[in-house]
Amino acid sequence: MVERKDYSTIFTTLDEGIFTIHLNRPDKLNAFTRDMMNEMIAAFDVSDADDRVRVVIVTGEGRGFCAGADLERGKGDGAKVFTTGDFIKKGPDGKNDYSAEELRDGGGRVTLRIFDSLKPVIGAINGPAVGIGATMQLPMDVRMVSTKARVGFVFPKRGIVPEACSSWFLPRVVGISRAVEWVTTGRIFDAEEAIATGFARSVHEPDDLLPAARALAREMSENTSPVAVALARNMMWKMLGEPHPMMAHRVDSRGIASRGMSADVKEGVQSFLEKRAPNFPDKVSTDMPDYFPFWETPEYR
Amino acid sequence: MVERKDYSTIFTTLDEGIFTIHLNRPDKLNAFTRDMMNEMIAAFDVSDADDRVRVVIVTGEGRGFCAGADLERGKGDGAKVFTTGDFIKKGPDGKNDYSAEELRDGGGRVTLRIFDSLKPVIGAINGPAVGIGATMQLPMDVRMVSTKARVGFVFPKRGIVPEACSSWFLPRVVGISRAVEWVTTGRIFDAEEAIATGFARSVHEPDDLLPAARALAREMSENTSPVAVALARNMMWKMLGEPHPMMAHRVDSRGIASRGMSADVKEGVQSFLEKRAPNFPDKVSTDMPDYFPFWETPEYR
Amino acid sequence: MVERKDYSTIFTTLDEGIFTIHLNRPDKLNAFTRDMMNEMIAAFDVSDADDRVRVVIVTGEGRGFCAGADLERGKGDGAKVFTTGDFIKKGPDGKNDYSAEELRDGGGRVTLRIFDSLKPVIGAINGPAVGIGATMQLPMDVRMVSTKARVGFVFPKRGIVPEACSSWFLPRVVGISRAVEWVTTGRIFDAEEAIATGFARSVHEPDDLLPAARALAREMSENTSPVAVALARNMMWKMLGEPHPMMAHRVDSRGIASRGMSADVKEGVQSFLEKRAPNFPDKVSTDMPDYFPFWETPEYR
Repeated sequence: MVERKDYSTIFTTLDEGIFTIHLNRPDKLNAFTRDMMNEMIAAFDVSDADDRVRVVIVTGEGRGFCAGADLERGKGDGAKVFTTGDFIKKGPDGKNDYSAEELRDGGGRVTLRIFDSLKPVIGAINGPAVGIGATMQLPMDVRMVSTKARVGFVFPKRGIVPEACSSWFLPRVVGISRAVEWVTTGRIFDAEEAIATGFARSVHEPDDLLPAARALAREMSENTSPVAVALARNMMWKMLGEPHPMMAHRVDSRGIASRGMSADVKEGVQSFLEKRAPNFPDKVSTDMPDYFPFWETPEYR
Repeated sequence: MVERKDYSTIFTTLDEGIFTIHLNRPDKLNAFTRDMMNEMIAAFDVSDADDRVRVVIVTGEGRGFCAGADLERGKGDGAKVFTTGDFIKKGPDGKNDYSAEELRDGGGRVTLRIFDSLKPVIGAINGPAVGIGATMQLPMDVRMVSTKARVGFVFPKRGIVPEACSSWFLPRVVGISRAVEWVTTGRIFDAEEAIATGFARSVHEPDDLLPAARALAREMSENTSPVAVALARNMMWKMLGEPHPMMAHRVDSRGIASRGMSADVKEGVQSFLEKRAPNFPDKVSTDMPDYFPFWETPEYR
Repeated sequence: MVERKDYSTIFTTLDEGIFTIHLNRPDKLNAFTRDMMNEMIAAFDVSDADDRVRVVIVTGEGRGFCAGADLERGKGDGAKVFTTGDFIKKGPDGKNDYSAEELRDGGGRVTLRIFDSLKPVIGAINGPAVGIGATMQLPMDVRMVSTKARVGFVFPKRGIVPEACSSWFLPRVVGISRAVEWVTTGRIFDAEEAIATGFARSVHEPDDLLPAARALAREMSENTSPVAVALARNMMWKMLGEPHPMMAHRVDSRGIASRGMSADVKEGVQSFLEKRAPNFPDKVSTDMPDYFPFWETPEYR
């Protein structure tokens, strides 16, 4: 039984604990809009809050994944394409003041939201994915691509800069050398290059892509503790920016101490000793430990 | 001539400048205990202090490397397995106070100790290695695996969080994507996946594992300056957390200036010009430069 | 038509927007000297300031790339080889004071300069490259190697520490495990190991190396905005050291807001909709946005 919810630019489905966000402007190759930004963020709020959701998959309807910002909207006016140009004011020093909330990059709002997801996120890249269609993939934990995938950080060819926090994410996903190569050439690369560079985990025939993504999602959700998974995912991402392993040691110690006394661990150890599948009682909605979140998100300014 | 020292859960051997730490609870697949934690730390104190030691190898006796925390000890009581649960007190604000030294994660004490090792560390992973048996490998410089190795960050299957600072180390060793996949699935993977992901450097038939690890250890110790190796290892690890290459430039400049005048460099340059093997006079115990250590370890709190 | 400029230890060529820095002490395998340091820095100042330059290639004349510090100069006196030993003074506390500008590592001055380059940098490694000949490659965006390349972080075999900020760069280029292996063994490795470890992007027959490097340089420069490329390259490198993606979000938002209104984006969007090659009007010398540079370089001390 699949539970479906429709938005204006996306729809979501939930079955077997797998929540799939379908980008849904197939006649535009799912080009990104302000509405899509808001709806993707809303969908991740749903996936975090719903304990039935164990894993999120993001994919595109039709033959594209996401063709980037909808360039036709501005009729060639970059400021209208990127929707922020009208808002720049001068500060007291006479220089442009970029600190207004209205100026925030829309792609970055999406990737920062994915960065904090309590559930693992798998990108199932079914076709062309350029611009924000490429950069939105970077905070996803795993990218799986179809043989039809074509990915491009095409920003220099449009005269614009890479966005969606891709300068933070991309070097951490594929290394600094490949990151600079991609954002300076703007090359559109295929599944083969996506695999060879470690950008994608695996390549699949188009019909096999979602089944393969769902198989991995099941491996992430079967016999695992939802609370432990939510903590583990965020520990890995957040410690990626910390200067010293002591920061992890502080959080680990809180985790071992507080989760060590949890009903989940009791069940995890007992089921292991009894050689049976565990049935973890704790829920993400109610049983996250009191030291969570263990990080501070810097303010936008 | 092999020099051997026995502890209760490990023993160490020293020959040809190679100090091997043997995890030694073979009937328990070398499951980790509080004693093993203390003894491993003590062994690294020995290896650092003994100038005859040039490289450390860690391996397991019997068919396992390390089966993780000894789950049978607590009889299914997680708090007793992880040994810390009894110590949690309330702080003045009524919330749990996790800052007590007694609450420190034991795995993290070991990995933080390895992080600061003055000698290079090679993991020779001879068999099953799960939980702390997997995470203790991460601050080692090189992992070499037997075809019998099976490695798993099994934490979510037991309802507990990854520890031993693995959230800091793992994404830096195999990348954030594979790190999240492993700590959310809890998958136990084989030597093939260990190689394909860059987790391990090389795979060997069981009988060839220690000889291969010793061959690399000899390459690290023959014709190299012990002081230069101690500095170089720590420079790489410590700069991994620094925000800007200027931090390295400061330390490099001190190193070039002070080591540039050392007896070791004099010998290193002369032996090169004379096309003979160097015989470096400086010792780690007495000749580390006065700017060492060049980093600050954050306090536990 | 090639424009050539001769220095004492290097010469530069410019044609088709590609600026090539040729290390030019072929009888010494282009061993590094204080003059070469100054001239390389000067050449990068030229490449940044000249709008005709789109990409920089660094290569060596003759059969070597760069044989490292010229060890023959000091006649076996390390302090004279590395040129800094005479300058160490005692501080008020009686300890050596390493903060003098004269003590700054020369290799680090070069790599810090390359780190800030406004144009992408490709290393075309034509032959032996050891010591500073290896470490100077690390802030270059891409390394392409000839089958004749031999690379070695030989520092421990000379009794000296790795320099040129390599402790910051190397683990970020090849991972911490391979970085420690190389700086503790001092091994000289071949093109095959350079490729297998991700140190180099591709390997070529000697005669094919520069043509391949130029082909990639053209891909970086044809149909791309010079200002967008300068920003993108520096965004990737600078965010590599930032703790949280919010840092990137702040810079991205400024970039999307200000560049979104630029003549370059107008042309980039129009040319795309008209299915023709773009002709970007903005120049690096005059049109970098007012939020650039968006990072602070820590002072040397």
